[in-house]
Amino acid sequence: MTTRELLLAANAAKSAMADASTETKNAALRAMADALITHTGEILAANGEDMDAARGHISEVMLDRLALTGSRIAGMAEGLRQVADLPDPVGRTLRRVERPNGLTIRRTAVPMGVIAIIYESRPNVTSDAAALALKAGSACVLRCGKEAHRSAAAIVAALKAGMEQAGLPSEALQLVEDTTRASANELMTASGLVDLLIPRGGAGLIRSCVENATVNVIETGTGICHVYADKQADIAMALDIVENAKTSRPSVCNAEEVLLVHQDIAAALLPRLRERLTSHEPPVELRLCPRAAAIIDGTPAGPEDFDTEFLDYILSVKIVDNLEEAIAHIAAHSTHHSDAIVTGDEAAAAVFLRSVDSAAVYWNASTRFTDGGEFGLGCEMGISTQKLHARGPMGLEELCSYKYIVVGEGQTR
Amino acid sequence: MTTRELLLAANAAKSAMADASTETKNAALRAMADALITHTGEILAANGEDMDAARGHISEVMLDRLALTGSRIAGMAEGLRQVADLPDPVGRTLRRVERPNGLTIRRTAVPMGVIAIIYESRPNVTSDAAALALKAGSACVLRCGKEAHRSAAAIVAALKAGMEQAGLPSEALQLVEDTTRASANELMTASGLVDLLIPRGGAGLIRSCVENATVNVIETGTGICHVYADKQADIAMALDIVENAKTSRPSVCNAEEVLLVHQDIAAALLPRLRERLTSHEPPVELRLCPRAAAIIDGTPAGPEDFDTEFLDYILSVKIVDNLEEAIAHIAAHSTHHSDAIVTGDEAAAAVFLRSVDSAAVYWNASTRFTDGGEFGLGCEMGISTQKLHARGPMGLEELCSYKYIVVGEGQTR
Repeated sequence: MTTRELLLAANAAKSAMADASTETKNAALRAMADALITHTGEILAANGEDMDAARGHISEVMLDRLALTGSRIAGMAEGLRQVADLPDPVGRTLRRVERPNGLTIRRTAVPMGVIAIIYESRPNVTSDAAALALKAGSACVLRCGKEAHRSAAAIVAALKAGMEQAGLPSEALQLVEDTTRASANELMTASGLVDLLIPRGGAGLIRSCVENATVNVIETGTGICHVYADKQADIAMALDIVENAKTSRPSVCNAEEVLLVHQDIAAALLPRLRERLTSHEPPVELRLCPRAAAIIDGTPAGPEDFDTEFLDYILSVKIVDNLEEAIAHIAAHSTHHSDAIVTGDEAAAAVFLRSVDSAAVYWNASTRFTDGGEFGLGCEMGISTQKLHARGPMGLEELCSYKYIVVGEGQTR
Repeated sequence: MTTRELLLAANAAKSAMADASTETKNAALRAMADALITHTGEILAANGEDMDAARGHISEVMLDRLALTGSRIAGMAEGLRQVADLPDPVGRTLRRVERPNGLTIRRTAVPMGVIAIIYESRPNVTSDAAALALKAGSACVLRCGKEAHRSAAAIVAALKAGMEQAGLPSEALQLVEDTTRASANELMTASGLVDLLIPRGGAGLIRSCVENATVNVIETGTGICHVYADKQADIAMALDIVENAKTSRPSVCNAEEVLLVHQDIAAALLPRLRERLTSHEPPVELRLCPRAAAIIDGTPAGPEDFDTEFLDYILSVKIVDNLEEAIAHIAAHSTHHSDAIVTGDEAAAAVFLRSVDSAAVYWNASTRFTDGGEFGLGCEMGISTQKLHARGPMGLEELCSYKYIVVGEGQTR
């Protein structure tokens, strides 16, 4: 099918998805989980072909993201079952007013319609995204990177079998066949056929969507996250938070990239920081501003080091004069994802939490908590770094729209 | 100032606006109202120049939209005072969770930042938009059509005087000086400098924003609204609703453009409809599908008559076989603004209210109620016809974003 045909098929299935009961949707999600398990052999075979084709062409990190195993597939199935256990976001009454003229006005959560997701080489995004869109009552059009296309096609075949078993139209789940740039552009400009486009991947993909899309897009994921150790920081706490935010999973968007240190505690904090991070396995490379480099050894930081999402065992370090300079630095360099202050000073914390304009702002905790599960949403479709519609982790509620339902007895105006 | 300079100035004033107390914002709104009154002479003089320049170049309807009078200025001032009386949308706790690990996570309403509004020739939009953006804690960049530019500049001068009197930075309110297309394009693509762009005007302006913007846009306003008179409609009620939705203010987006009539009541309803609407002052022109034309006299409808926002005393009429055909027609032709069913059949109403995918769906009431004031929001910045972020009337809450504020005691993950 052409991309346009896929989009039309997904749109034709919209109302069946919107009308599906919670029970039907949950039964479908469980059947889809079972189907992933029973189709494990086909999925692993397809993934093996993807791996063979990709080997030598993409990095080891990317190969690892692409690789599936029996236990990774079991994890995807478990993810589907967890989405089945979440509350249904569709149909909730968000607000209800009775007007003096007798009109009853209910603001009610409704499905978005058709959600398109453009992603890269992680095959597990296929089932995660399909599950969330389905539970949110929407049809779903997936477009994955060409490296993962055979794996995604095998996963989608299994998921569609599960949907049909539960009586949901499998046309509501579509995988774009064309893996050239043309199909991504077509999704970005399919006004009237795509209600929401979510890019999940690197900065280049996201920028391309933001710049080229005429459909509604939610910008996700780029994270240049800061931790600021204030004058009154508990140094042991600051070291724990910095190590965790940097090293617990450096490849994710909520990992710390930049440490800002108040000048008054730099001499006490930086030597212990260096000891802690360079003895970490693997060790963390420190890129230091001139003032930090006067206290500890490390790589001199270039200006680009304060505007780079390393996604690696690298941390840029800058000494600031005070809270205001820290806030100004974050305003100039943050991607508005997650930024933290470590301090015992409640007033300083309040200023930081109010002034830093990011999706999540932290006082005395690691930026690594910016995550749908950690925030109690049960799941997530990505982390929004824009201000419109959804900010931070997007769960099922954020994948819905609303409408006003107005009931009268002949009222005119 | 160049448009870029204006944008930078507005951005520099963002944090002062975000930090302004409710009392300061309300004092500013009242001072701005007073300033409009005291500057009435200058504003009327500027408007007179706009009118002189426009006369002969734009239609009478447009001239009427452009014209100011003392009482229209007093109405604008009253609008500012009403916004002062509304609750402050900033800082509300939208959700609060305590996680098992002890983290407290608060989802909190925050200002959008810089809101840009592109509008056409209504000078009153200047003060309405400025008031709403200010109360929502945002800086505001206005770009009006060239016909209204002198009027808008005089209004903005008065509003800035009021802001300063109350201690708010007047840089937070900017009127773009360049009235060529270049400045509109610059606002649409000012990534990082415009947090939200709202076009208020005709379909061409809105389409241009949706197609060209790289900043977040909310699509507003186009309304091809339907009333469907079902088989079990109370005919007197249907006639009242149709007349009101069509004639009470045909130039607005929530006015009815298309009447759909169930075939079983067409013979009873249509003659009375014709009598009612052709005797209206001014009379309504009926554009009839062939089946309707077999029952009453009128203009034969061309296919484009079911896809046109007339904004005039014109109503297209189509007979449908049943509820399903009505819903399918609306799905194909509605702009997803406001659509109504008139029926005594609760089951039919439920199907219509669920299936019609519009910002507002009505049962036994006029589409004319889709309005911030009528919905109890107290005001509105426009009517969103998109599904992302805000749908239907946008009040102060819809002009805000949110962020997550996370407080811990050293938690790591």
